Amino acid sequence: MSISPELRINPERLFPVDPATRSVCAALYEQVRSAPIISPHGHTDPSWFANNTPFDNALSLLVTPDHYVLRMLYSRGVSLQSLGVPDRQGNVHVSPREGWRNFAKHYFLFAGTPSRLWLDTTFHEVFGITVQLDEHSADYYFDHINECLAQDAFRPRELLDRFNVGFIATTEHALDLLTHHQSLVQQGLSERVTTTFRPDDVLDPDFVGFAENLERLGDITGESVGTFAGYLNALRSRRAYFRSVGATATDHGPATPFTADLDSAAVERLFDRCRTGAASADERVLFRGHMLTEMARMSLDDGMVMQLHPGSWRNHNRALFEQFGPDKGADIPRRVDYCEALLPLLNAVGNDPKLELIVFTLDESNYSRELAPLAGHYPALRLGPPWWFHDSPEGMLRYRHSVTETAGFYNTAGFNDDTRALLSIPARHDMARRMDARFLAQLVVEGRLSESDAHTLVTTLTTDLVVEAYGLGDRIKRFTERRTSAL
Amino acid sequence: MSISPELRINPERLFPVDPATRSVCAALYEQVRSAPIISPHGHTDPSWFANNTPFDNALSLLVTPDHYVLRMLYSRGVSLQSLGVPDRQGNVHVSPREGWRNFAKHYFLFAGTPSRLWLDTTFHEVFGITVQLDEHSADYYFDHINECLAQDAFRPRELLDRFNVGFIATTEHALDLLTHHQSLVQQGLSERVTTTFRPDDVLDPDFVGFAENLERLGDITGESVGTFAGYLNALRSRRAYFRSVGATATDHGPATPFTADLDSAAVERLFDRCRTGAASADERVLFRGHMLTEMARMSLDDGMVMQLHPGSWRNHNRALFEQFGPDKGADIPRRVDYCEALLPLLNAVGNDPKLELIVFTLDESNYSRELAPLAGHYPALRLGPPWWFHDSPEGMLRYRHSVTETAGFYNTAGFNDDTRALLSIPARHDMARRMDARFLAQLVVEGRLSESDAHTLVTTLTTDLVVEAYGLGDRIKRFTERRTSAL
Amino acid sequence: MSISPELRINPERLFPVDPATRSVCAALYEQVRSAPIISPHGHTDPSWFANNTPFDNALSLLVTPDHYVLRMLYSRGVSLQSLGVPDRQGNVHVSPREGWRNFAKHYFLFAGTPSRLWLDTTFHEVFGITVQLDEHSADYYFDHINECLAQDAFRPRELLDRFNVGFIATTEHALDLLTHHQSLVQQGLSERVTTTFRPDDVLDPDFVGFAENLERLGDITGESVGTFAGYLNALRSRRAYFRSVGATATDHGPATPFTADLDSAAVERLFDRCRTGAASADERVLFRGHMLTEMARMSLDDGMVMQLHPGSWRNHNRALFEQFGPDKGADIPRRVDYCEALLPLLNAVGNDPKLELIVFTLDESNYSRELAPLAGHYPALRLGPPWWFHDSPEGMLRYRHSVTETAGFYNTAGFNDDTRALLSIPARHDMARRMDARFLAQLVVEGRLSESDAHTLVTTLTTDLVVEAYGLGDRIKRFTERRTSAL
Repeated sequence: MSISPELRINPERLFPVDPATRSVCAALYEQVRSAPIISPHGHTDPSWFANNTPFDNALSLLVTPDHYVLRMLYSRGVSLQSLGVPDRQGNVHVSPREGWRNFAKHYFLFAGTPSRLWLDTTFHEVFGITVQLDEHSADYYFDHINECLAQDAFRPRELLDRFNVGFIATTEHALDLLTHHQSLVQQGLSERVTTTFRPDDVLDPDFVGFAENLERLGDITGESVGTFAGYLNALRSRRAYFRSVGATATDHGPATPFTADLDSAAVERLFDRCRTGAASADERVLFRGHMLTEMARMSLDDGMVMQLHPGSWRNHNRALFEQFGPDKGADIPRRVDYCEALLPLLNAVGNDPKLELIVFTLDESNYSRELAPLAGHYPALRLGPPWWFHDSPEGMLRYRHSVTETAGFYNTAGFNDDTRALLSIPARHDMARRMDARFLAQLVVEGRLSESDAHTLVTTLTTDLVVEAYGLGDRIKRFTERRTSAL
Repeated sequence: MSISPELRINPERLFPVDPATRSVCAALYEQVRSAPIISPHGHTDPSWFANNTPFDNALSLLVTPDHYVLRMLYSRGVSLQSLGVPDRQGNVHVSPREGWRNFAKHYFLFAGTPSRLWLDTTFHEVFGITVQLDEHSADYYFDHINECLAQDAFRPRELLDRFNVGFIATTEHALDLLTHHQSLVQQGLSERVTTTFRPDDVLDPDFVGFAENLERLGDITGESVGTFAGYLNALRSRRAYFRSVGATATDHGPATPFTADLDSAAVERLFDRCRTGAASADERVLFRGHMLTEMARMSLDDGMVMQLHPGSWRNHNRALFEQFGPDKGADIPRRVDYCEALLPLLNAVGNDPKLELIVFTLDESNYSRELAPLAGHYPALRLGPPWWFHDSPEGMLRYRHSVTETAGFYNTAGFNDDTRALLSIPARHDMARRMDARFLAQLVVEGRLSESDAHTLVTTLTTDLVVEAYGLGDRIKRFTERRTSAL
Repeated sequence: MSISPELRINPERLFPVDPATRSVCAALYEQVRSAPIISPHGHTDPSWFANNTPFDNALSLLVTPDHYVLRMLYSRGVSLQSLGVPDRQGNVHVSPREGWRNFAKHYFLFAGTPSRLWLDTTFHEVFGITVQLDEHSADYYFDHINECLAQDAFRPRELLDRFNVGFIATTEHALDLLTHHQSLVQQGLSERVTTTFRPDDVLDPDFVGFAENLERLGDITGESVGTFAGYLNALRSRRAYFRSVGATATDHGPATPFTADLDSAAVERLFDRCRTGAASADERVLFRGHMLTEMARMSLDDGMVMQLHPGSWRNHNRALFEQFGPDKGADIPRRVDYCEALLPLLNAVGNDPKLELIVFTLDESNYSRELAPLAGHYPALRLGPPWWFHDSPEGMLRYRHSVTETAGFYNTAGFNDDTRALLSIPARHDMARRMDARFLAQLVVEGRLSESDAHTLVTTLTTDLVVEAYGLGDRIKRFTERRTSAL
């Protein structure tokens, strides 16, 4: 193990190298370094927090569920089997230790990637490890992390405390029974941990099992989904149910940002064709597009924040999908447009400042061309943080550099981590804070922003905007009070 | 008022922070800091210069006509009514002072934007203000600016002198009678202030009122626009009329850069269908595309520079458009291509070095992919400066970094401000000079350009290219002589 | 001549200006500065190396074959005739000296371009010239370079030695008889200089002369190309023939990256329609797309690396093409997509780590959006280096900044120069080494990469990846041994 190089985490990592800028950056970062983590969009497992069971082992916690990690290893010829990823039938071919060793042996592949920064920071700051991960230190890592995980201090809720997580949202589909979230409500934890309403399963006729999902939607809600009005009522009912366990937001992941706003006769006919499986491919897309506008209207009624995450070509690798299922690193961004795609929805509801519509993109060419101008005009629209592949130092710089001049800071929505990798959450938020401090510092030293405004803005970007965009003011206030009184 | 922070304008703003680069940059900037402003493309009101009437008040000069300002305020829920923007019927809901207060109260929204830099520079350098604009200083600003505007020194022509504007072009549609420009001719001012021929109203069948515009075109010119030949003659006549008041350029703002080059029988038929309203949407686009090529041919005949500004989706927000009209900040860029779109026009006339075709883009993905390669090949083509949303520090950097390696410096066309905000013109040109000096300084310190070549180029970028591209050599020479003899 | 400014080549050119980063960069660069040049993709003339005849003169070596140089000169009104470029009939209008003078007179146009850096470096380091090229030094340059070229030390093979070229590949079409490469085999030089199989002429029904090419393919191989099976056999035969003179790779330059994977009945019918000229435009594209997948399958069989270079709109300027032929600087990149286009091919063969598919792009918007995610997932896929217009300092920075976070370093394929300009090869590889050292140095000083990992990676990027991707391990090992024993 001593053969492995020392693991050092540079306390000034990601800061700009110019001494004057670095000094301004350091002061800005210091101001927000310890601010509570607010995580309004992500994919952690609610059972962790409801049950607070210890995590199993290093591999199943840190490797097999992380599609960023799997994709890179797979791309250089490391099979998912050799990493202990279960196939669709649940078969596993190697022991957790063997899977971990394979991961460690190929860890060098992550040089220069955010995954490397997140993982190294996690190893060092969460587990106190001081040597680098490689094939020599693999067993030490595996044993040490597993020992930690067996301790109470590493159970899910204790980690939330340790990480200073003020709020975290999971994501569940419309038909989810929210068992774990109900349990969180009963345990008085739902103010801090809640769900997000993700209804692609009942809005998108191309979703696998759409027809059956509609039936189940009717069953669960007691509404007749044979008519469009009944279908809308059923959706309203599910939204209310999600709100009843604390949800403040919906999330939508269509293949493209296409929207539509049809008249009621047309949509009634279209719904009928989609419901019965008679709809053509174009009609299915049209229906999905119209339903986004309906969701925006419901958000105006019930106050839920609407998140739009379009543009991922899911399960691009069919053979891998058939063998291992979704979320294994084979989702590929595609080119999309927003100017034309969002026109129907924005013309329907975009002028209402009460609507909070947060739009994300995987196609960065839209930042300066379409999204910043749209967010810099429509009162309802905010631009979400750099997403997925772009949740990275360079991605964050490109975002701020491309977006700020047209949309300013106040049409953005703070940071979110969008992750299922619980242990990486502090490292991800820390990265965002560093990069925002860096961007602001550059504006200061170049005479484009006063230092005083930069100190206001670094807190705005870290805390205020996300609180405002997701309506979390009361929750974060109470969290901070509890936290203060506990100290 | 003393409660507001001091307003400081950093004399080295926008310079690179590295000391070695900054020093080179400062020397380059100093060389062009006081060069005459040449503004060959913009939207100021010719009546200002023809009549030289004092400006009314701070709000109507600086806020209500500036769509950059309106869009940002509107995007965060500030209504246009509350800013004193008149609706289509001319109704105004607040006093100028109230509108100004609303602007001041939300001025923080502009942090990090070029509007903030332009406005602060204007406040400080034009009006001598030394405190920042916020709700506390709002009344002081309003009163002080209005007092200034009442003085002779702040009348339009005096501002042209003070700003050292050597040449400024306004933009008028093809049917404009050019009354103010005729007055400028009579007053001997048309060498310095002239118009630009913008014939979208009579070239684009989708332009509102196209059929009536054609009729008026016939009436004004005495040509029969019932035939394509007569129509072309009428256009030639209008071009000649614009040239008679000093115009050197045409400007074209189609929805996309699509061009066509049809044979005469096809275009005769197409013109007939467009003229009578029988043309389909595709046919209307085809006609518009063909007419761009005709315009290029006429430019070869009469020597007018041809500017092409495509890619803006005008009036994206229909409700706002219906209530308040165009140019309120709701124009959104869309994705376009140039490689295929310009092929017909460039194959028709692109090999002739006598043609000056200046192309702009709102879709920056074309800079390195299509526009720099096209401008770096076709003799007729120059690339215009970063436009609209990209007329900003970051936009200018992206432009030079993306374009220069393939198109060099000499296939570009200098800077233009494209603004109706007269008072921001010095700040805008100053920003461009700073960013060009910065880019050149970087090339110098990285050993990519000699310091001597950089000193040649900074003047080339500031003065020579725009003079050459727009054919302004004699005018600027005489301006400089007058200026020198006046000192 | 002494009137011309001194020509200085900054030894730290392209290094970052910050002193701390520059120092790390310099150490990284020093490590790879003298590494052998490995040039697996390019367009030099194999007769140079087979015959080792002295080069003719400065103009025909450095100007008339270089489309980067021709395009820039042409774009500012310098005619190809005045540069001594022969037309399709072989007519030349000026003497080499006159052509060179015209080049020299307009050499200032290249300020800020990579061509200027390559040429200046070549002038200084290959020819020992110490004054800048301009109209005053034109004759001195012409005479001096011609004197050099007459010496043995400047003959092609001697230049390969002087430049430390370990491996160089040319590119020939499928029907090429490979006479010069046969000669290289006979002379024992084919390990160091070999060809690449570029079968666009027999795969793309839109290729000029496709039908005749098919016939010739049948004649050359003795296969019956009247059936699809025979056609595939003929292609296998040509691949084997190219391999017999040392080729390790194929190269494909379709207009777009579109691929298809048809069933055998469909492709048999399609082939028939393409062969007989009955195919529609869509069918021709479909066939071309399917054949890319067939080529990938053959690569799996015979181990040849497959290179895909799509997205150039060839011969955009028709009049120029008719007068002067291809490769005169009139190829324009167009917008393409990879996510959808490569799906059929990648689903057919992309999961096999034994396939080396190297994909290039001229549309940089795909780097972070589609190509890095694809290369960061599919085992068969590597991303080629920044290509053509992007083989430049800024292009290389954009590439590393856009690609690395998602694809890492190990899914890339090292550098290649893709040039017919033999004398520029050292300058081009040197530029890539400097820019890679610069990028790595930035990661180091920002705490994103350890200095030790950076020293590993700079050799990986310069040597290991290209050797691995193109299967050149044995050749480079033997080259290095010969080189060492010769010292």
